[in-house]
Amino acid sequence: MAEAEEGTQRMESEGQQNGETVAGTTDLEYNSLNQPLLKRNRTLSASHLAMVGAKVSHIESLDYEINENDLFKQDWRSRSRTQVLQYVFLKWKLAFLVGLLTGLIATVINLAVENIAGYKLLLVSNYVMQDRYIMGLMMLTGINFLLTLSATLLVVFFAPTAAGPGIPEIKAYLNGVDTPNMYGAPTLFVKIIGSIGAVSAGLDLGKEGPLVHIGACIASLLGQGGTEKYRIKWRWLRLMNNDRDRRDLITCGASAGVCAAFRAPVGGVLFALEEVATWWRSALLWRTFFSTAVVVVILRAFIEYCSSGQCGLFGDGGLIMFDVSSVGVRYHAMDIFPIILIGLIGGVLGSLYNYLLHKVLRLYSLINEKGKLAKILLSLTVSIFTSVCMYGLPFLVNCTKCDPARPNAVCSTTGRTGNFKRFNCPEGYYNDLGSLLFSTNDDAVRNIFSTNTPGEFHPLSLLIYFALYCILGLFTFGIAVPSGLFLPIILIGSAYGRLLGVAMKNYTNIDEGLYAVLGAASLMSGSMRMTVSLCVIFLELTNNLLLLPITMLVLLISKTVGDCFNPSVYEMILDLKGLPFLDSNPEPWMRNITVGELADVKPPLVSLRGIEKVSRIVDVLKNTTHNGFPVIDDNAMLPNAHNTKLMELHGLILRAHIVAVLKKKWFLPELRRTEEWEVRERFTWAELAERDTNFEQVAISKSEMEMYVDLHPFTNKTPYTVVEDTSAAKAMVLFRQVALRHLLIVPKYQGSGIYPVIGILTRQDLRAHNIQSVFPHLPKAKGREKQR
Amino acid sequence: MAEAEEGTQRMESEGQQNGETVAGTTDLEYNSLNQPLLKRNRTLSASHLAMVGAKVSHIESLDYEINENDLFKQDWRSRSRTQVLQYVFLKWKLAFLVGLLTGLIATVINLAVENIAGYKLLLVSNYVMQDRYIMGLMMLTGINFLLTLSATLLVVFFAPTAAGPGIPEIKAYLNGVDTPNMYGAPTLFVKIIGSIGAVSAGLDLGKEGPLVHIGACIASLLGQGGTEKYRIKWRWLRLMNNDRDRRDLITCGASAGVCAAFRAPVGGVLFALEEVATWWRSALLWRTFFSTAVVVVILRAFIEYCSSGQCGLFGDGGLIMFDVSSVGVRYHAMDIFPIILIGLIGGVLGSLYNYLLHKVLRLYSLINEKGKLAKILLSLTVSIFTSVCMYGLPFLVNCTKCDPARPNAVCSTTGRTGNFKRFNCPEGYYNDLGSLLFSTNDDAVRNIFSTNTPGEFHPLSLLIYFALYCILGLFTFGIAVPSGLFLPIILIGSAYGRLLGVAMKNYTNIDEGLYAVLGAASLMSGSMRMTVSLCVIFLELTNNLLLLPITMLVLLISKTVGDCFNPSVYEMILDLKGLPFLDSNPEPWMRNITVGELADVKPPLVSLRGIEKVSRIVDVLKNTTHNGFPVIDDNAMLPNAHNTKLMELHGLILRAHIVAVLKKKWFLPELRRTEEWEVRERFTWAELAERDTNFEQVAISKSEMEMYVDLHPFTNKTPYTVVEDTSAAKAMVLFRQVALRHLLIVPKYQGSGIYPVIGILTRQDLRAHNIQSVFPHLPKAKGREKQR
Repeated sequence: MAEAEEGTQRMESEGQQNGETVAGTTDLEYNSLNQPLLKRNRTLSASHLAMVGAKVSHIESLDYEINENDLFKQDWRSRSRTQVLQYVFLKWKLAFLVGLLTGLIATVINLAVENIAGYKLLLVSNYVMQDRYIMGLMMLTGINFLLTLSATLLVVFFAPTAAGPGIPEIKAYLNGVDTPNMYGAPTLFVKIIGSIGAVSAGLDLGKEGPLVHIGACIASLLGQGGTEKYRIKWRWLRLMNNDRDRRDLITCGASAGVCAAFRAPVGGVLFALEEVATWWRSALLWRTFFSTAVVVVILRAFIEYCSSGQCGLFGDGGLIMFDVSSVGVRYHAMDIFPIILIGLIGGVLGSLYNYLLHKVLRLYSLINEKGKLAKILLSLTVSIFTSVCMYGLPFLVNCTKCDPARPNAVCSTTGRTGNFKRFNCPEGYYNDLGSLLFSTNDDAVRNIFSTNTPGEFHPLSLLIYFALYCILGLFTFGIAVPSGLFLPIILIGSAYGRLLGVAMKNYTNIDEGLYAVLGAASLMSGSMRMTVSLCVIFLELTNNLLLLPITMLVLLISKTVGDCFNPSVYEMILDLKGLPFLDSNPEPWMRNITVGELADVKPPLVSLRGIEKVSRIVDVLKNTTHNGFPVIDDNAMLPNAHNTKLMELHGLILRAHIVAVLKKKWFLPELRRTEEWEVRERFTWAELAERDTNFEQVAISKSEMEMYVDLHPFTNKTPYTVVEDTSAAKAMVLFRQVALRHLLIVPKYQGSGIYPVIGILTRQDLRAHNIQSVFPHLPKAKGREKQR
Repeated sequence: MAEAEEGTQRMESEGQQNGETVAGTTDLEYNSLNQPLLKRNRTLSASHLAMVGAKVSHIESLDYEINENDLFKQDWRSRSRTQVLQYVFLKWKLAFLVGLLTGLIATVINLAVENIAGYKLLLVSNYVMQDRYIMGLMMLTGINFLLTLSATLLVVFFAPTAAGPGIPEIKAYLNGVDTPNMYGAPTLFVKIIGSIGAVSAGLDLGKEGPLVHIGACIASLLGQGGTEKYRIKWRWLRLMNNDRDRRDLITCGASAGVCAAFRAPVGGVLFALEEVATWWRSALLWRTFFSTAVVVVILRAFIEYCSSGQCGLFGDGGLIMFDVSSVGVRYHAMDIFPIILIGLIGGVLGSLYNYLLHKVLRLYSLINEKGKLAKILLSLTVSIFTSVCMYGLPFLVNCTKCDPARPNAVCSTTGRTGNFKRFNCPEGYYNDLGSLLFSTNDDAVRNIFSTNTPGEFHPLSLLIYFALYCILGLFTFGIAVPSGLFLPIILIGSAYGRLLGVAMKNYTNIDEGLYAVLGAASLMSGSMRMTVSLCVIFLELTNNLLLLPITMLVLLISKTVGDCFNPSVYEMILDLKGLPFLDSNPEPWMRNITVGELADVKPPLVSLRGIEKVSRIVDVLKNTTHNGFPVIDDNAMLPNAHNTKLMELHGLILRAHIVAVLKKKWFLPELRRTEEWEVRERFTWAELAERDTNFEQVAISKSEMEMYVDLHPFTNKTPYTVVEDTSAAKAMVLFRQVALRHLLIVPKYQGSGIYPVIGILTRQDLRAHNIQSVFPHLPKAKGREKQR
């Protein structure tokens, strides 16, 4: 599995040399315009390792381009109308199933978390009421310890890829980077159980990110008919045998996940569109929307069912986060100043959060390198610290007297939910910090977002809460459990939002709860740098359209401020994990380098002939790690050529397809072109869709080594090409827009003796970072902003 | 301005013939796979005329690709950091201005319409109350006649492009088709005044479509610094001198327009994304969102100002269409059946509407061809018919007694608004059909959407209303006034929705008003085939999130049903207008034809040499209508070539740039390559950005004709290329994805004597319709569904 992407070389050297010389000498005005920026002493190389979840893995590019070889064309032609309809229907059926399963799993997670955490809190709460404080602490810490331990053990031993939110990896997948073991059944299972454990353990993390990953896993498993091992080979699934369809399905899965996390169907679609997906089509928008609609129906049915009290401690917790639709939102022109202030703070804190998180994650990666035990110990340390703080800090603040206007049933509750928790206080009093800390994270958000409760939280309590969650938010994210980023950020943001609300209460008539909501929105935007999708998610969370203009304003300001300092948290994590994500905007200095110059610093190009000797093929496969080879026919292959030095660029062949040919030993005793039926007899398109590049078991005899293989039928006859003078920036745009894996560079010269291909570009070659390492002075040549 | 797109030809014939022969004889397996589908007896030609608004115009492609020639590179390098910041700031400033102006104009239109129509209705209402029915009819018809006449006269004589909604033309523009006079100041002015006139005249059309066009006009005018004639040449505007930036700004404008129409900021963004725009980037999403946020703030400020009664008859009409947020929406599992029913009906009626509209528009285009008078008479006929129906039909129904539970002030109003209008009824009674017909369209929508008023409308009245609007909706759209499609469809849809609600009232507990809303949504989806954006627009209109799942279901069903019958109404209009829109999905049979085959049936390719004689250039420009020419250097231009038959594909030059050179008479007395400074001295990139291809005034003397021009500095050195074997489908995807105007076809063979370019493809060549006309049996070769 550990193949690198392609290098480029000229095997036929004389012809190429010739072309080279010409290119070097005649391109007069080119040289005069381009200052001699280039040092050609280094080689453009690329790492093929990246962090996937908490595991270093080999990564590979995906084939999103349609491989138009003869077998594909033939398969495609032979599809009947029924099969095409089946195929369309299949896509919708899978989108439905993705929605259904994601909805059900989200329900299960919510139920489990609310019940486990609920009983835990009830138990500890009883000890507190009996003044058995130490016992309470032991109990809380112990249970949380065990829950964290189970989640961590699962992650560390069974599915390291299940650690973290998974969103960066999904983003990379949809950009064209395959991350192994990321969407398998073990990952799905560990993600579900681990997420329940970690969230119930009261850690400062959410189930939102993991739900997105769960949605993507379900989509991937459905799209390939089960796990790698026990794959269902249904006839209808064979219709869905390309990376492109899987990509679309995973986009559906990610949207369904966001929708399930926030009960925000439109927000889910927009999140996938704005943040996760790289390619998008109108038809996909529609299918994605269908998936999220299914999720919402499932969740709604489940809430209706649970509202009659049949779900244990569930109530309607965990799903309806915030409902201000009953509050009359009134704001006036003067309220714009606190709103701008929140936006500014959000932007600054968001980028600061990104910066610090980057440092912490670097530190953690050092710890994680020490082995599994280190990972487990790290998780447990965070768990114990969290439990102690959660339990201990409420004792530091004074009890607050209940507002006599409120009925006793509302204030000073002892149960697991409620906005005014008694905790250690006497009857008629409540502990405001306890209401926030001694509850599940979802309840905490609901409490701090609560409207019409001015003065409920003492500024000191809010300050402690804010400080605590800043620390926890930074140190919890990187541990080896499934964890989301949304909730920690919402918690921090709501804290300073509410604090600001308390401070401004004499100058504004916006409710404190609204300040908390806006604070959360601003920090999310300041850190994640999304606008439209966040806006819609908040709209759907708050169910109040009147909030829209101020939410938009806050989001825009904090994104703008944040962008001044550093990239978004996802970009930062992608970079940290080493995932070769292709950004939509090339760096401006990439206009100053041509693809021809990039080809020059790559390893030599390896090409194959249309009908090639087996020994040469085996040799090439063994000695290179490239995944694609240009297929060039020369005179021998072109019997009718009048020209003595004619060459034909026949196309590009994938390593996987060559391996398939070797495995079937489809060899020819003599050098000849095969007929169409010969190939069709032995190969089907569906077989070739399997990406198996391992050919070590194939034993090839000596006599077979002397035989030939006709590569023509397997060659993608229409690879995308760029002329050598094209700038790297333009090539990158093409590469990303049409979702390529290999991009052939063709010479601008036409004449005998010039080799028809100059090189192959892959994803890694077009990454600014890699180019920069070979041409270090390029970016500095002129300090220029990235143009949007 | 009447240039056609490029043809293709081989001027250098021997070399090419050679290559041809090779291609014809050696591509063995190609021929065996491709049945002999091709008849090469026809030429791939294209029409360059299309209906723009109500005027037949020449259309042209836009240059969205960055023209990477030396001048661009040099201009781009010379930009200082400040200029780049200025540029980024400029984009945001323009997005702000687009939002601001669109918001203000929407406000003005609303104010004007509500006041003109309001006073008109009050006046007529007084006649009715005095039982002077004939006088009332005369008055209403007369005023409407005058209003329609003024709108039509403006459109017919000053800006024919202002007729209709403008959305199809915007869609085409964003797809890369320039439609002249579409975004000028006269169009904007006529659109505003005409829209006020037409809507006040009570015609069955909305201001929604025109508002989208108005937004786009504002964006375009701002983006180029004013009208064609009096253009402001501000320094900062010179930074924005490419089609790409204008495209982005027009996208902002369109979103702002939708937002202003429905007060739906997120819906506006999504509408632009789903329906209007072809290319999309995350950065654009953000800027578009900013524009709509500005619009919403303007509208909100204005509503707040008007709520104190300072805007004449305005009240809060025209902006808040529907507010069910106060209604408790309750629905249960059984309510799914009526919902599915609405969806089905919406799909069937929507596609039927599209079908009939198509017929009517064809009929109207015959009438419109007869000249300006015919257009005016058509409008006036529709106006008189509408007025008579609006006024006369309410007399046919019986008066209904007011619900005694309602206060008299609410029921049986005589003013211009109100849900229960007295019209011709005695005190304490109201005329239900009069409430719907004898009001502005916005009020009618509000009335029929009204909740908690079961039994307000008699089924017979609803039936008459439905039938009337079906007729009006079909026959009003094509007349020569600014008209939107949204409102007529909403009116029809709400009518059958409410009818269904009345019919189902014993079986369901969904409010009748909600049925009306769902009916409107279903018909919109059934006709326009949008899902996500409609869903969000309805969400923002109704301000109730609980409606979301059922709205989604209705939209999905009606879109699916509608798609079974015919394409969406916008696609239908695009097709009818002859705008060469490139769809995102190529037809499946386009995989069966290669671009090489397309090049064969095109007119001969015309190419230029890098340093070309003036006489030849003039000759080429005069005798061809192509807008781009490949620039090929041969041995004479390549002094150091060792190879005797070497040719270089230097790039592609635009006609506009050649004309610029001719105009400046930048001629060389001898054949030589120019230095960089020579070009820079005479030309700036901003000058070349002007698209002026008219060179008739340029007088070139005989001696100048013998001089040379160095085309190299103006040549886009990195045109996108495809190899001749690429399928038309793949080429189309590339063409659309990277937003090209010209796509060069390069040979797959490499050898001496082969011409480096086989042909040029343009938008027209890749349209299924055009290919089909040359290869008529291709699509029929295998009946295949369009794969999504």
